[in-house]
Amino acid sequence: MTTTFLYKSDPVRGRIWAEVFRQQAPEIDFRIWPDMGDDPAGVRFLAAWTPPDDIATRFPQLQVLFSSGAGVDQFDMSALPPALPVVRMVEPGIVQGMVEYVTHAVLDLHRDRPAYRRQQQAAEWKPLPVKMARERRVGVLGLGSLGQAVLGSLTSLGFDCAGWSRSRHAVDGVQCFAGADELPAFLARTDILICLLPLTDATRSFLDARLFAQLPAGAALVHVGRGPQLVDADLLAALDEGRLSEAMLDVTEPEPLPAGHPFWSHPRIQLTPHIASMTQPVSAAEAVIGNLRRFAAGQPMTGLVDRARGY
Amino acid sequence: MTTTFLYKSDPVRGRIWAEVFRQQAPEIDFRIWPDMGDDPAGVRFLAAWTPPDDIATRFPQLQVLFSSGAGVDQFDMSALPPALPVVRMVEPGIVQGMVEYVTHAVLDLHRDRPAYRRQQQAAEWKPLPVKMARERRVGVLGLGSLGQAVLGSLTSLGFDCAGWSRSRHAVDGVQCFAGADELPAFLARTDILICLLPLTDATRSFLDARLFAQLPAGAALVHVGRGPQLVDADLLAALDEGRLSEAMLDVTEPEPLPAGHPFWSHPRIQLTPHIASMTQPVSAAEAVIGNLRRFAAGQPMTGLVDRARGY
Repeated sequence: MTTTFLYKSDPVRGRIWAEVFRQQAPEIDFRIWPDMGDDPAGVRFLAAWTPPDDIATRFPQLQVLFSSGAGVDQFDMSALPPALPVVRMVEPGIVQGMVEYVTHAVLDLHRDRPAYRRQQQAAEWKPLPVKMARERRVGVLGLGSLGQAVLGSLTSLGFDCAGWSRSRHAVDGVQCFAGADELPAFLARTDILICLLPLTDATRSFLDARLFAQLPAGAALVHVGRGPQLVDADLLAALDEGRLSEAMLDVTEPEPLPAGHPFWSHPRIQLTPHIASMTQPVSAAEAVIGNLRRFAAGQPMTGLVDRARGY
Repeated sequence: MTTTFLYKSDPVRGRIWAEVFRQQAPEIDFRIWPDMGDDPAGVRFLAAWTPPDDIATRFPQLQVLFSSGAGVDQFDMSALPPALPVVRMVEPGIVQGMVEYVTHAVLDLHRDRPAYRRQQQAAEWKPLPVKMARERRVGVLGLGSLGQAVLGSLTSLGFDCAGWSRSRHAVDGVQCFAGADELPAFLARTDILICLLPLTDATRSFLDARLFAQLPAGAALVHVGRGPQLVDADLLAALDEGRLSEAMLDVTEPEPLPAGHPFWSHPRIQLTPHIASMTQPVSAAEAVIGNLRRFAAGQPMTGLVDRARGY
C-alpha cells in the first residue's frame, strides 16, 4: 500500500519539494494537487496553505495536516476532523527571513532613517542626535521560535530587549514578561514594539488605541504578525497625534491592501507586501520529511499545534 | 609643572570629555579651546578635529596630536612637526555606529527595500523574489577595526563575505584579498560593495567607472569612507546605465552636499549626512586617557598613525 503525500500550495515551490522528496524520501508517493494519484483515498499526509473542502470525506485516511507556512490561522479548525494533528511550518528559511526583516526594521527606526529619507527629499543636510543601542528599548510580542531568533539578533547588536508572551518564557539577556497582568509594564518600557504574535481570537485587534496609549510617547511599531491584529484607524490616529512616531507594516487586512487605503500614502508608514519571512522550499520540504520520520517513530513533531490554543 | 591637555572640537562634547578627565585623570589640566590656561606653551597634548595653525610655534612642547574622529585625512600632515605622533580615534562608539549603519544598509539592499519603497509610492502590492543571505556576496574595502567589526555582524547574518585591503589580513569566515593584483577578483565576486577605506592619495577617486565596471552587473554600493574617494559623475553614469542598481552614500565632497547636486534627487541614491558613525564622547575620552597612560608608560598607543602611509 502506497503512502501518498499531497501538496496543495504554490506549484513552483511544489516542484522543488518533489525533488527533495524524491532524493530524501523516495518511499513516499509525492503528488502535487490536483494530481492525487491512483488512489485519492490513500492520501495520508497533506501539506497546504488552504486545504480543500470536505477534507474528512475526501481523505478518510489522512493522518497529518501540515501548513505550508508559519501560521495556521488560515485553517478553519472547526472544519477539520477533531483528532487530526495539525503542524505549523518551522524551518530555518522562515526564521532567517524574519531575523533579517526585523533587524533591518529596528536599525531603520533606531537610526532615524525615515527622518533622513524625508530630509533627503527636502535636500536638507542635518545630522540628528544619536542614541546608543543600549539606550533603545525594544520589545517583542511573541516568544516562539521567531521571537526568540529575532531577540538573539537584536541583543547581539546591543539593544535593550524585552519580550512578552501569554505564558512564561526565559530568553538569555532578555527581560521576559508574561500574561495580561505584565503587559502594561512591558509596554511602558518599549520604544520599538515588534508584533510577532500568532493570530487567534485573543490577538485579533490586539494592536489598538488602548495598547498604543501604554507605550512611551513617540514609540514605533513593527508589525510582522497578522493583519487582523491591527486596528487600522487606531494606528492612523496614534501616528497623527504623535503618540506613535513611525510604523513598519508587513501584514494588512485584507492582503493585498486595496488601492486608496490610507496606509499606502501615510508619511509615517512603511509598507511591505507580506515578504518579511518566506518559506524556503528546500528547507521546508526537509523540515516536513523530518516530521514524517518523527511521526513514524512515534516521536513528537516540531510545530505541532495545540488546537485549543490555536497555535 | 602642569601637564595641559587642550581639546579643540565640538564644545558640547568637550564638556563631557572634561567630566571624564576630572574623574579618571584629575592630574591633567584639561582645557577646552580657546581657553589654554595660564601657560599656553605648556600644552603637551592636543585633541582636535582641525588643529590650529602654527602648531609648532604655538605649542613647542606638544607631545601627541589626537584626532577627535576616526579619520586623520582632515590633518595637513606636511604642516605638522615631522616627529609628532598623530593618533586616530579608536573607540567602541565609532565601531558600534558603523556596524549599525552598514548592517542596515546591507539588509536594506539585500531585501530590496528601495524597490519596495518605490512600489509603496505606486500603491503596488507585489512580492519580489527572495535570495538567501548565503547567496548574497558582500565585499568590504578596508579591513581595519571598522571593516573587521562590520564583517563580524554580516557573517553572523549569514552573508557570503569577502574583504580587500592594501596589505594582507585574515578575518574569520571571510575570504581576504590583498593589494592591487587581487582587486579584480574581489570586485568580480561582490554584489554589495562597502567602502570603508581611509582617505589617502592612493584612495582618492578610487570608486570610479573603471572599478564599477569590474563589479557584477546590478551590484550596489555603500559608501561610508570619505567623499573624495567617489567620482560623482561615474556613479551617476553607472546607476543610469544599470551597471549599478543602488547606492547608499553617507559621505560626499563637499559636505554638506550643495543644494541642486544630482545625488539629492536621484531615485537610486539614498543619502545620509555623514552620520554612519559618531564618536561617543564618554568612550572617546576614555580611549584617549587609555592612550595617555600607554604613552606615559612607553607603550604603543592604539590608533597611532603611520605618517608615511597616511592612516
